[in-house]
Amino acid sequence: MSPLVAVVCGSDSDLPRLESGLQILKDFDIPFEVRIISAHRTPEEAAEFARTAEPRGIRVIIAVAGHAAHLGGVLASLTPLPVIGVPISSSALDGMDSLLSTVQMPPGVPVACVGIDAAKNAAVFAAQIIGAGDAAVRQRVAQYKSDMARQVREKDEHVREQYSC
Amino acid sequence: MSPLVAVVCGSDSDLPRLESGLQILKDFDIPFEVRIISAHRTPEEAAEFARTAEPRGIRVIIAVAGHAAHLGGVLASLTPLPVIGVPISSSALDGMDSLLSTVQMPPGVPVACVGIDAAKNAAVFAAQIIGAGDAAVRQRVAQYKSDMARQVREKDEHVREQYSC
Amino acid sequence: MSPLVAVVCGSDSDLPRLESGLQILKDFDIPFEVRIISAHRTPEEAAEFARTAEPRGIRVIIAVAGHAAHLGGVLASLTPLPVIGVPISSSALDGMDSLLSTVQMPPGVPVACVGIDAAKNAAVFAAQIIGAGDAAVRQRVAQYKSDMARQVREKDEHVREQYSC
Amino acid sequence: MSPLVAVVCGSDSDLPRLESGLQILKDFDIPFEVRIISAHRTPEEAAEFARTAEPRGIRVIIAVAGHAAHLGGVLASLTPLPVIGVPISSSALDGMDSLLSTVQMPPGVPVACVGIDAAKNAAVFAAQIIGAGDAAVRQRVAQYKSDMARQVREKDEHVREQYSC
Amino acid sequence: MSPLVAVVCGSDSDLPRLESGLQILKDFDIPFEVRIISAHRTPEEAAEFARTAEPRGIRVIIAVAGHAAHLGGVLASLTPLPVIGVPISSSALDGMDSLLSTVQMPPGVPVACVGIDAAKNAAVFAAQIIGAGDAAVRQRVAQYKSDMARQVREKDEHVREQYSC
Amino acid sequence: MSPLVAVVCGSDSDLPRLESGLQILKDFDIPFEVRIISAHRTPEEAAEFARTAEPRGIRVIIAVAGHAAHLGGVLASLTPLPVIGVPISSSALDGMDSLLSTVQMPPGVPVACVGIDAAKNAAVFAAQIIGAGDAAVRQRVAQYKSDMARQVREKDEHVREQYSC
Amino acid sequence: MSPLVAVVCGSDSDLPRLESGLQILKDFDIPFEVRIISAHRTPEEAAEFARTAEPRGIRVIIAVAGHAAHLGGVLASLTPLPVIGVPISSSALDGMDSLLSTVQMPPGVPVACVGIDAAKNAAVFAAQIIGAGDAAVRQRVAQYKSDMARQVREKDEHVREQYSC
Amino acid sequence: MSPLVAVVCGSDSDLPRLESGLQILKDFDIPFEVRIISAHRTPEEAAEFARTAEPRGIRVIIAVAGHAAHLGGVLASLTPLPVIGVPISSSALDGMDSLLSTVQMPPGVPVACVGIDAAKNAAVFAAQIIGAGDAAVRQRVAQYKSDMARQVREKDEHVREQYSC
Repeated sequence: MSPLVAVVCGSDSDLPRLESGLQILKDFDIPFEVRIISAHRTPEEAAEFARTAEPRGIRVIIAVAGHAAHLGGVLASLTPLPVIGVPISSSALDGMDSLLSTVQMPPGVPVACVGIDAAKNAAVFAAQIIGAGDAAVRQRVAQYKSDMARQVREKDEHVREQYSC
Repeated sequence: MSPLVAVVCGSDSDLPRLESGLQILKDFDIPFEVRIISAHRTPEEAAEFARTAEPRGIRVIIAVAGHAAHLGGVLASLTPLPVIGVPISSSALDGMDSLLSTVQMPPGVPVACVGIDAAKNAAVFAAQIIGAGDAAVRQRVAQYKSDMARQVREKDEHVREQYSC
Repeated sequence: MSPLVAVVCGSDSDLPRLESGLQILKDFDIPFEVRIISAHRTPEEAAEFARTAEPRGIRVIIAVAGHAAHLGGVLASLTPLPVIGVPISSSALDGMDSLLSTVQMPPGVPVACVGIDAAKNAAVFAAQIIGAGDAAVRQRVAQYKSDMARQVREKDEHVREQYSC
Repeated sequence: MSPLVAVVCGSDSDLPRLESGLQILKDFDIPFEVRIISAHRTPEEAAEFARTAEPRGIRVIIAVAGHAAHLGGVLASLTPLPVIGVPISSSALDGMDSLLSTVQMPPGVPVACVGIDAAKNAAVFAAQIIGAGDAAVRQRVAQYKSDMARQVREKDEHVREQYSC
Repeated sequence: MSPLVAVVCGSDSDLPRLESGLQILKDFDIPFEVRIISAHRTPEEAAEFARTAEPRGIRVIIAVAGHAAHLGGVLASLTPLPVIGVPISSSALDGMDSLLSTVQMPPGVPVACVGIDAAKNAAVFAAQIIGAGDAAVRQRVAQYKSDMARQVREKDEHVREQYSC
Repeated sequence: MSPLVAVVCGSDSDLPRLESGLQILKDFDIPFEVRIISAHRTPEEAAEFARTAEPRGIRVIIAVAGHAAHLGGVLASLTPLPVIGVPISSSALDGMDSLLSTVQMPPGVPVACVGIDAAKNAAVFAAQIIGAGDAAVRQRVAQYKSDMARQVREKDEHVREQYSC
Repeated sequence: MSPLVAVVCGSDSDLPRLESGLQILKDFDIPFEVRIISAHRTPEEAAEFARTAEPRGIRVIIAVAGHAAHLGGVLASLTPLPVIGVPISSSALDGMDSLLSTVQMPPGVPVACVGIDAAKNAAVFAAQIIGAGDAAVRQRVAQYKSDMARQVREKDEHVREQYSC
Repeated sequence: MSPLVAVVCGSDSDLPRLESGLQILKDFDIPFEVRIISAHRTPEEAAEFARTAEPRGIRVIIAVAGHAAHLGGVLASLTPLPVIGVPISSSALDGMDSLLSTVQMPPGVPVACVGIDAAKNAAVFAAQIIGAGDAAVRQRVAQYKSDMARQVREKDEHVREQYSC
């Protein structure tokens, strides 16, 4: 099946932080591809990727990058697709640099940013974007949320009994 | 026509900052509604809104809030729809509080955040989300981008001549 | 005995940070309950809890949460009871995100915030609130303070002798 | 009637920022006193005030201070009463200094902090503390909240009609 | 004369902040060109510019940008020339976002950053780079520094007399 | 009378911020000199000043500087005299840059820092240093403090009457 | 010999960070005392200490504290002696809270602040204060500086040979 | 061969962070020297170094320093050569202090700053400066960039296959 979501990572050292996000996409039955493309080290691949993503059938791009994280912005400049940015805490500033580099895009070319290292939330948001045009995916998101709620309720019951006094 | 995008504002004092964003939605022919709902002052209206948005046909929610900006998170907790957060610089901290309150959502319940006061970018991103499932809107986004490019090129030509030496 | 203080935790992973606070409540003979309720994953339980807390006899709520910590604000929006917020340093930003999300509440709906990870101080403050209407508890707070003073004085004597020269 | 709340201000230049807070206390029929006491310029008056507040019938202290805001901590060190801190944005750092000086109290001696310049929220919180032991005040807080909700709902109706399209 | 320095500005609204920098280049007799090129709105022009700068004879690039300032990094990714970044304080965060977006480049692709809004220092640094390979320009830099020193000494003499007591 | 305190300013544009500090030195009868010396523009004058200050009879140096404020550190490196640093809020970062540049000196070469723009406090501290070896000056500092206390007490009386209710 | 410097620590857990500072005072032959006094837990001891320090012969106070570090300010409010503050990185904010709580003192009551955890620099500065009125101590400071210089020069020679190429 | 680049380190404890940068200079066949010179502990050596660097044939200076990093500014004040600053994360503030101390230089005396701990990028930038006047070095920089690109492309191919699904 042709991928709907592209997860683009600025460096392969960030791959371990993606695991929980990729699992979400699998759980939601959303086909995806993973790429290592650096805005700064492979700018031509980045441009090529961004220009061809929409015609290839990609519908959402997740851009994962640390330090001065330009990847999301660079991709967003060359595609009409929505780009979700995931700032990574790989530098001495614990990701504050990546967060501001990702979220503070100038007027007209948005990158929508999730929390630092929050690849899981990026995947859920990608599913919500797919779901905006697909009731079945929307339903899976709703189910995911009610599963989370159930888990918290179970913990609550346990803790309530054990800790209150 | 039934609205596809809901722009929810935590306070009517933030309305002036929305103008450029609402104009984008009009330009893109995306029907929208504007609401004043406070996560903290009208929590029941917030819950009611979030629960009924998807069945009413809304496909994207834009949440605009300042200070400890909980609005995006509160709405996201009760809907499977994608929620875009716009942090507002209304406090003494110039929006850093709203930015962190919006973007740093815990795992499982994302709010995708644009820049501080960036209502325009939120609107473009909403269009991109609608566009993920609608080629005509995607086309309008592409057109918007090429219009922007043309404007910058015109300025470039003017400046190049006038300033270089 | 019916609990006077409710300690509500956004995630069970934060429970270890609560120990010293729960001990304070025990030492002060203030009955309490501990709950795991997530503003974002169990919003309905959060609303239900907040609406019923006052009629059930709760007099103070302590809300413990990390990341974009909305729990305190969400509870405060639905109860006339005082809500104390404890920001938790669980994210890459070491709790600065939780602190601002908790303390910078908009006008009209306060959450009173203690320091990052300061569950102990939240418990002492809860006792002080109970004590505002109960001279016996006030007396226990005063005693607690004079015990702390004595301990510091003992250390002072020891250090003074050993280190000065 | 003897004051229940003491509003202590580190400098008379901060008085204008207190207006909305004092009005809340009047609206809630809670008798209060206003004092100018500086932790650093009148330390003896600060100590005298803190020691006598509880026997004089004060039940809550609101400490308002800017820069390195020590006032809340200094009063809290000498009274068993709850102290609410209001950081003021009077310095070049826009109140971040006052916020951290107020909220990050060491273990055992809490000051509960509201937002920067948030005298109104401090007053509401003081009412909630009084209300913890007084059902009539609690009722007035509940009424205040439902008045706020009504005002937001009215704005919502107006905006909804005028802006949506 | 063919330009040696290219001053590239992400937006024409930043042009007024360049004046003092352009004056420096004129004073140092270094031919330059000024361009308006946006990394995000005209990515293709940015790539074209970066690829052709070195063959066209440009020796130093100054990239001026605000918000999430990607311009320096985008140009640096496609040229072997040194790129100096000037972060601009055009956003709510007073340029801290632009500073981190510019200076925190990942390993291998540096942008050398000057202070926020410091177009003048970027120009002096560009002259120093040209001067590294051109003793005449180096001499002009040395002269510039000794002129500055003289001006400060004159002020010192004046102030010393007038203020000391 | 030979000056005991040297107030060294990195730029004459900071002179207006010194007024209240110079007045303190006059009030305390401490002879002083004012100099404009830039660590970066007149490094040789800075070195000359630092080397000769102690033999000329100076006993305390106050260094006033903005941006990357190196002046205090540069003087401290060349004199055994105590150097007090005053960070100035002249840059886009409101003095946080100057504060950190001044206070975070590496081990062995301290600059003691007062608050941002706090020339008055630098002057009081200089008097306290002189006073450490001169009981008469110490007495003037004590008197200054009791004058401040009296002024606050007068305001307190006025406010107490007018505002409490 | 009667102590000239008092090193006051807010908590005995900070003692290990003082070692290098105490060694400096020993090396400079400056008699000192070490105390554990908490501004918040032993406010009366703090006041007693501050009031009696000057008559007891103390000439400089070093106040070491973490979190919302009020100790320096509390002591400075009750003594005409110079107070040096050492912010400690004991909280989740790595000492930024202590730094601002110490350095940003309001007008009239300075605490002169050294770097975070910089007990050594506080000790050197205390020696410089004593030295302002005592040529022998001033001489020892000068000697200390020239010893440091020699050590750096030795490292330079070694590194120069080994690393350059 | 006479060194073209001088790498000056404020402390020998920072040497391990330089390795990758020195390797770059070797790979690019650019002769260099490494020095340990402290702006604060060996100010005279710093001045001597800065004054003689240009006549000795040095063309670029890299200044590496932590805490309140004045080294770059001090050297820049005494040489017409370009100075690249490398802020080091050696303090409790993780290098934010060094970054601001380095990058926020006042008008007229630039230090061009790379990222925190980014010695490698400083070396690449030094090569780019040398390359501005030397086509062979420029060619080596271009080659270095295309080598990096190739490595990323290889990783991309591997990851694409293994992770996409």
